[in-house]
Amino acid sequence: MVGIIMGSQSDLPIMQQAADFLKSLGIPYELTVVSAHRTPERMFDYAKTAKERDLKVIIAGAGGAAHLPGMVASCTTLPVIGVPILSSNSIDGWDSVLSILQMPSGIPVATVALNGAANAGILAAKIIGCSDSGVSQKLELYQNSLKDKVLGTVDDIKKMHPNQFDK
Amino acid sequence: MVGIIMGSQSDLPIMQQAADFLKSLGIPYELTVVSAHRTPERMFDYAKTAKERDLKVIIAGAGGAAHLPGMVASCTTLPVIGVPILSSNSIDGWDSVLSILQMPSGIPVATVALNGAANAGILAAKIIGCSDSGVSQKLELYQNSLKDKVLGTVDDIKKMHPNQFDK
Amino acid sequence: MVGIIMGSQSDLPIMQQAADFLKSLGIPYELTVVSAHRTPERMFDYAKTAKERDLKVIIAGAGGAAHLPGMVASCTTLPVIGVPILSSNSIDGWDSVLSILQMPSGIPVATVALNGAANAGILAAKIIGCSDSGVSQKLELYQNSLKDKVLGTVDDIKKMHPNQFDK
Amino acid sequence: MVGIIMGSQSDLPIMQQAADFLKSLGIPYELTVVSAHRTPERMFDYAKTAKERDLKVIIAGAGGAAHLPGMVASCTTLPVIGVPILSSNSIDGWDSVLSILQMPSGIPVATVALNGAANAGILAAKIIGCSDSGVSQKLELYQNSLKDKVLGTVDDIKKMHPNQFDK
Amino acid sequence: MVGIIMGSQSDLPIMQQAADFLKSLGIPYELTVVSAHRTPERMFDYAKTAKERDLKVIIAGAGGAAHLPGMVASCTTLPVIGVPILSSNSIDGWDSVLSILQMPSGIPVATVALNGAANAGILAAKIIGCSDSGVSQKLELYQNSLKDKVLGTVDDIKKMHPNQFDK
Amino acid sequence: MVGIIMGSQSDLPIMQQAADFLKSLGIPYELTVVSAHRTPERMFDYAKTAKERDLKVIIAGAGGAAHLPGMVASCTTLPVIGVPILSSNSIDGWDSVLSILQMPSGIPVATVALNGAANAGILAAKIIGCSDSGVSQKLELYQNSLKDKVLGTVDDIKKMHPNQFDK
Amino acid sequence: MVGIIMGSQSDLPIMQQAADFLKSLGIPYELTVVSAHRTPERMFDYAKTAKERDLKVIIAGAGGAAHLPGMVASCTTLPVIGVPILSSNSIDGWDSVLSILQMPSGIPVATVALNGAANAGILAAKIIGCSDSGVSQKLELYQNSLKDKVLGTVDDIKKMHPNQFDK
Amino acid sequence: MVGIIMGSQSDLPIMQQAADFLKSLGIPYELTVVSAHRTPERMFDYAKTAKERDLKVIIAGAGGAAHLPGMVASCTTLPVIGVPILSSNSIDGWDSVLSILQMPSGIPVATVALNGAANAGILAAKIIGCSDSGVSQKLELYQNSLKDKVLGTVDDIKKMHPNQFDK
Repeated sequence: MVGIIMGSQSDLPIMQQAADFLKSLGIPYELTVVSAHRTPERMFDYAKTAKERDLKVIIAGAGGAAHLPGMVASCTTLPVIGVPILSSNSIDGWDSVLSILQMPSGIPVATVALNGAANAGILAAKIIGCSDSGVSQKLELYQNSLKDKVLGTVDDIKKMHPNQFDK
Repeated sequence: MVGIIMGSQSDLPIMQQAADFLKSLGIPYELTVVSAHRTPERMFDYAKTAKERDLKVIIAGAGGAAHLPGMVASCTTLPVIGVPILSSNSIDGWDSVLSILQMPSGIPVATVALNGAANAGILAAKIIGCSDSGVSQKLELYQNSLKDKVLGTVDDIKKMHPNQFDK
Repeated sequence: MVGIIMGSQSDLPIMQQAADFLKSLGIPYELTVVSAHRTPERMFDYAKTAKERDLKVIIAGAGGAAHLPGMVASCTTLPVIGVPILSSNSIDGWDSVLSILQMPSGIPVATVALNGAANAGILAAKIIGCSDSGVSQKLELYQNSLKDKVLGTVDDIKKMHPNQFDK
Repeated sequence: MVGIIMGSQSDLPIMQQAADFLKSLGIPYELTVVSAHRTPERMFDYAKTAKERDLKVIIAGAGGAAHLPGMVASCTTLPVIGVPILSSNSIDGWDSVLSILQMPSGIPVATVALNGAANAGILAAKIIGCSDSGVSQKLELYQNSLKDKVLGTVDDIKKMHPNQFDK
Repeated sequence: MVGIIMGSQSDLPIMQQAADFLKSLGIPYELTVVSAHRTPERMFDYAKTAKERDLKVIIAGAGGAAHLPGMVASCTTLPVIGVPILSSNSIDGWDSVLSILQMPSGIPVATVALNGAANAGILAAKIIGCSDSGVSQKLELYQNSLKDKVLGTVDDIKKMHPNQFDK
Repeated sequence: MVGIIMGSQSDLPIMQQAADFLKSLGIPYELTVVSAHRTPERMFDYAKTAKERDLKVIIAGAGGAAHLPGMVASCTTLPVIGVPILSSNSIDGWDSVLSILQMPSGIPVATVALNGAANAGILAAKIIGCSDSGVSQKLELYQNSLKDKVLGTVDDIKKMHPNQFDK
Repeated sequence: MVGIIMGSQSDLPIMQQAADFLKSLGIPYELTVVSAHRTPERMFDYAKTAKERDLKVIIAGAGGAAHLPGMVASCTTLPVIGVPILSSNSIDGWDSVLSILQMPSGIPVATVALNGAANAGILAAKIIGCSDSGVSQKLELYQNSLKDKVLGTVDDIKKMHPNQFDK
Repeated sequence: MVGIIMGSQSDLPIMQQAADFLKSLGIPYELTVVSAHRTPERMFDYAKTAKERDLKVIIAGAGGAAHLPGMVASCTTLPVIGVPILSSNSIDGWDSVLSILQMPSGIPVATVALNGAANAGILAAKIIGCSDSGVSQKLELYQNSLKDKVLGTVDDIKKMHPNQFDK
């Protein structure tokens, strides 16, 4: 249902986080390497057949001059989520962020934070949740679990730093 | 079906472009001003009731320290699209872009380009199109129309600059 | 008297420095975790009850798209001091600095340097010192102690690098 | 009660906004030009006598290599609010923002947004409001008035863009 | 012999400068619009047939998330010169510069300065001049003419500002 | 046929990659250190004699205020490829990138990515390939080998992450 | 005694300010155009003969990839003052600032602010004033005149904004 | 003859390089810590007595919001050389560079590269060399030694990478 692609195998440790989130919610995904610059035909085929292969959302991660998310978006009407990746020889990630974010009018890419592959997975789930109430309910549980984790740390810290707010 | 909100009335000329696109595709929307900093309760109410009011996607635009998209995303499981706006006294738009894009793990915002409200409208339509084949077909027509516009300019330019590619 | 909050437990090593300074001056404080994005209701409650709980100043630290200081400021008339924190996956701290600093007209946040939690503690003391001459006197002693530390290093360096100014 | 200073007469149109806000709340202020670089002795005298002249807060605005706020802070224990100003030949305001914000540990400056003199005035009022309940109450009225202004624009926009949230 | 392409008709006033230089040296060129995002198939066809159409060099200009030069380079072994263009809603040109410059290992783009289409034309001529001594000689004349223009301004300025170097 | 120069011996580990690529294609090269600032006469001699020594392309790498590529370009009509190098005390590479890229009209430098010496070698080969079909054919083999490497990683990843696209 | 050079006639309105200051102090100067990229031999001759022509200081202004100040410094032991100039197609002046400032160890350029030619003139006078007490005395008068101008604006502002500091 | 000051003892490893160069040329110097923010009176005294203590040039290094060089320049007519230092919690050095470089008209600081203390020492020597032919001759020897070092590395590299230029 969700396609996860990345420009290079070296992006896998980051992009794996998108897959992990989808898995935790039981959303099927496929994951592979598609390089805009080294395998342009593969990229075109992937993007052009995405819909007929029943993908609903594509998550694309890339570093440096990160053309993959935008080029995939130009070849499909599916929503494309772009993950800027801080690769070696990047100029602090700015190249990747701006190459993905600053798409021209007509071809949007839903950009998440630098190395934000987990958020890309969550965003994909939110998109699927628009028409799938099961996913939507799981997202509410997930969002509540975030709150619970914070409150857990509140309890930890309270032992050393008492506060009058959390009595 | 799509909620369009913005931090200030001065953002309307930009954000109107999202509404215009949705209108052109026949997708219903509502549009209003919700300020994260000046009307925080309104923002919370808006975000928390969005789902029960049958919104599917929220588009939120803001400039400067643009907290609206991220804060709305923290109060709903709907996908939130963030539009960084180049406001007066912004530092070249960087403040707005980074405030919207760099969300922490758990709470994504689908960020589009600076002043990219038209793309936000298109992205919202793509999200709806995931489960609405009518919208999906209109998006294909739209994406084809972009191509036709380019080919129109090709013809214009060819009169002055002949080329062997477009015979 | 001073509330110290942070978006995540990982901010504690930095934010602890604000607590340490206040403690050294005998100014009471409370310290806890309040996440704008993962516990928005908690953040609202914290900010809205701050005044009635007799807080005078709130110090809020956060990294990335750092919305906590600005959102707290939108829900209270107390002065809010914002500490940008250099978190992992930050773009060199720019995201945090700009998200906190570039607040719109009407809702100021008193921003200090990146990771400047110690300065946030000092600034809180200065604010309290406006109406508390005891704190004000301690601040003068502190500011003198800074001078003494510098003069101590002057003596150290003079042994290796004589100079005619410090005879 | 509040001292407003600026590095150059050309900063007056911006810095006037701080004075206007204080005036609107009935908080007395004085306003003058103090240049760190062209009148260093004047700056020292101003800062060193500020407390005995019964100032509670100092607002200092400057552009370019903006040393005024930080240098004033080094000569007084009063809280100093810094206003970065976008002057001609500035590099997009970055010089002013960073020169004011990035103070070393020990000497904080409460920095507001680029050209954010109005917010500096509000912040000064918040500081005074810590120990002056009359000012504190006026700030609540002010903060409510911000909300009312937003709601006014909501009504305006509703005529053209109906929404189901504001029935 | 040289293909000049650009992402949008709005880039023509800049990209025309590349054509003008080539014309001045008698080097044949073709010029058209090829949009990576709106006409991806056209881009692929253009790049893949470039060599058989006897192009020697391709000059590609684009603004924002400027994927055209890099994508063309991925589909041909011809040298591709990229011209970053400062388009509206660009973040000061950084997006375009970094999207073109920061290509991954394997697929270079010869990037010139922001809006540097004239230099792209000169660079294309230099590349052709590697194996065409006629072009190479014309480039020497051109480079000398630059010197002569400078010396002309030297004479102009000398009338008002005498100097001992140019006697 | 290709001259590879660099501003300092410390640039050799990066610049070696250009030599390695040329070697792999059987293109002759020479490699040495030429410092614009410490050996300006040597730089002039090198650039001015390059053509008569039968160089076709010059690759010049430098860090910080990287004047070498631009100054060499000012003394020859050969195409000059500039490699910005991330040296110690660089400001994240921005100094080197901008010093090489932003050449004035008339004197282009073909700039590649930060530390992109391998791409400089490839670009030099592409330039030579314009008039040398043997080199051009080797470049096609090389570009295909990039594709094959990607497809190899596709196979590796498929074992852990099955996908329906690569059946 | 002081040589003022610039890369292009378009820099004259800025660089004129250096000449004007020197003139006001009675320090002889010469002013001309020397382009590093378009007249490299002229630049070398200028720099190499500067000392024998009895120049004491060289002021060099340039925009974009501004190599002139650094290259002149590489050919003389005279102190060279660099003036970054905000030229058209500059990326906000960053290119010029970094190309001049970030010189490698061994070859310093005394860099002043963007468009800071007046300060370059003052700095040249300060350098000459090191061994010329007449110039040194004039600089003190000048520095006092800056103070007087500020105090004049203090008087102007006092009429509208009374303050207790300037009684 | 040359005063070397720095804002903090932690700057000594960098600033020592200025002292080392001056020592190597036999130019007397003094070196100490003077903090603009923690010892403002000391800074004023140092700057105001510099001339009568027969200093000719002051080298001032500082990190973060680096006010020391500019403030010293405001209190003396001696030339002041500023060294931006990359300190902990700096935003990649930009704060220090801009705080020192972007001085207002009237009060120049001769800024060198980030961490460029060695160049500050060389620049001080060049300034002294304007009126001291002994120092000037030593600088020529030094500048020649730079060339010799480069040529030494040329010989080293030639063993592995033969070139036809250095026969």
